[in-house]
Amino acid sequence: MIVVSTPGTALADALGEPPAGSRLIRWDVDGPAPEENIDIVVMPYMRAADKFPWLDGVNIRLVQSQSIGYDGIRLPAGHVLANASSVHETSTAELTLALTLAAQRGIPDFVRAAEKGEWKPDRYPSLADRTVLLIGYGGVGQAIEERLAPFEVNVIRVARVAREGIHGFHELQELLPQADIVIIGVPLTDETARMVDAAFLAAMPDGALLVNIARGPVVDTDALLAEVTSGRLRAALDVTDPEPLPEGHPLFALPNVLISPHVGGATSAMLPRMARLLRTQIERMRDGEEALNVVLRS
Amino acid sequence: MIVVSTPGTALADALGEPPAGSRLIRWDVDGPAPEENIDIVVMPYMRAADKFPWLDGVNIRLVQSQSIGYDGIRLPAGHVLANASSVHETSTAELTLALTLAAQRGIPDFVRAAEKGEWKPDRYPSLADRTVLLIGYGGVGQAIEERLAPFEVNVIRVARVAREGIHGFHELQELLPQADIVIIGVPLTDETARMVDAAFLAAMPDGALLVNIARGPVVDTDALLAEVTSGRLRAALDVTDPEPLPEGHPLFALPNVLISPHVGGATSAMLPRMARLLRTQIERMRDGEEALNVVLRS
Repeated sequence: MIVVSTPGTALADALGEPPAGSRLIRWDVDGPAPEENIDIVVMPYMRAADKFPWLDGVNIRLVQSQSIGYDGIRLPAGHVLANASSVHETSTAELTLALTLAAQRGIPDFVRAAEKGEWKPDRYPSLADRTVLLIGYGGVGQAIEERLAPFEVNVIRVARVAREGIHGFHELQELLPQADIVIIGVPLTDETARMVDAAFLAAMPDGALLVNIARGPVVDTDALLAEVTSGRLRAALDVTDPEPLPEGHPLFALPNVLISPHVGGATSAMLPRMARLLRTQIERMRDGEEALNVVLRS
Repeated sequence: MIVVSTPGTALADALGEPPAGSRLIRWDVDGPAPEENIDIVVMPYMRAADKFPWLDGVNIRLVQSQSIGYDGIRLPAGHVLANASSVHETSTAELTLALTLAAQRGIPDFVRAAEKGEWKPDRYPSLADRTVLLIGYGGVGQAIEERLAPFEVNVIRVARVAREGIHGFHELQELLPQADIVIIGVPLTDETARMVDAAFLAAMPDGALLVNIARGPVVDTDALLAEVTSGRLRAALDVTDPEPLPEGHPLFALPNVLISPHVGGATSAMLPRMARLLRTQIERMRDGEEALNVVLRS
């Protein structure tokens, strides 16, 4: 019997009848484990930076995260961590298009005009005909590209390692001046932290849009703040550094900066996809197959 | 020699060198024609509802509109009107996705929170997994469908005349209860005026989103106002009735209504596509071929 803990009722409800040979229990990992042996522990969502001392001493075969990123996650030794690839790509890529289209087509300006009861048409740049530099070509990057495809854009792909059809990070200084829109979809690593610094931003053309749906610390906030305060660049950010962005932070007040509060994954799309991944993980463990999405062995 | 008038310099500039055998002149159609024979007259943009008495008495072979819709256009007798199919589909479909994604993913709420300097995450419905009723399946409707395709939605197509894979208007009362999102992309005609009335809206499920990027009078504003004021439905509107929406109109103040001020076509995408259409029209006339997009012979 595969014992599976979930941190709340929503995921258990979405899973419905657990797969044959498995049993579900509730554990939020904020207190002692209800049982000594739990085969799969599903972690609470958006708590990657916390420590989880209660995992210690429990016999766990797989720790299942509900996020794709696993930067800063701190597990006691001896654990196997699977991330939530396949769960968030849909929702995160969708938000990326929402932010990009909204920023291009003036939606924030129209919302502010409506607040004042005003109809204020103006001319905005389309997404069509733009050159989009897509930095990061993992699951999220590919899902973004699929959604960009029908919009008549020129997509230039960039990833850490250059390969057929994909440029490497080392070519960025040459590529950035061509970009009308730069989308950041890289994982946060030592290499990508502060990757978007003053030199990176300076290489972007006047009026270009930076979209960050990855992790806040990939961008140097002070360097970005300087470029958007002057009005030379525009930004659309789902993630910030620090995060949450403190009340009254100057980024909030700029008309050329659109901020969504880290909601890339937090939609109705998440639960059914998380339930589908968990079902697969349970069935694979029951059938003696390897877990999917293993990203860390601590 | 084909003589072509344009209403301003922008279109002439975008056209660049006119096709061999043609000559460009300037005429805004707001005063007497500069010449007696003008083969192609390009009309000013967004002036469809005006009368154009100055066309009278000029020898014109083709009146070229810069819009797709030609409801309310009033030409003196004897004129041939071509619309701007192929010019606005890109930009209008793009705005449709911008409005739909913004409304689904809470962008207006985030803009308002940012105005107050606040980070306020919340859970929103994804576009993914939704059923979208796409009403109107001409050029704009098809361009919308292409852009919806990668978003993991279920699209139900509806047009005036039912055909393979497309439902007819007469099935709407059965289809509306299935729709999470209803997109209106029909031309304004006697049949479609006030098509979205109280009964139509009542058939939409609680929480559904109405997106109108067609023409304002397709929707009964009072009926819509009742459903969005109660909070039962949401709306995203690029067109309104009356239009412009008067300052302080109650639709502006509702958090569940997103309004863009009729900017479906007004982007950087328009000019190069309009120049491409005009070049084609000139070349076809020069070569003795039929004009494209002829929609009216007055």
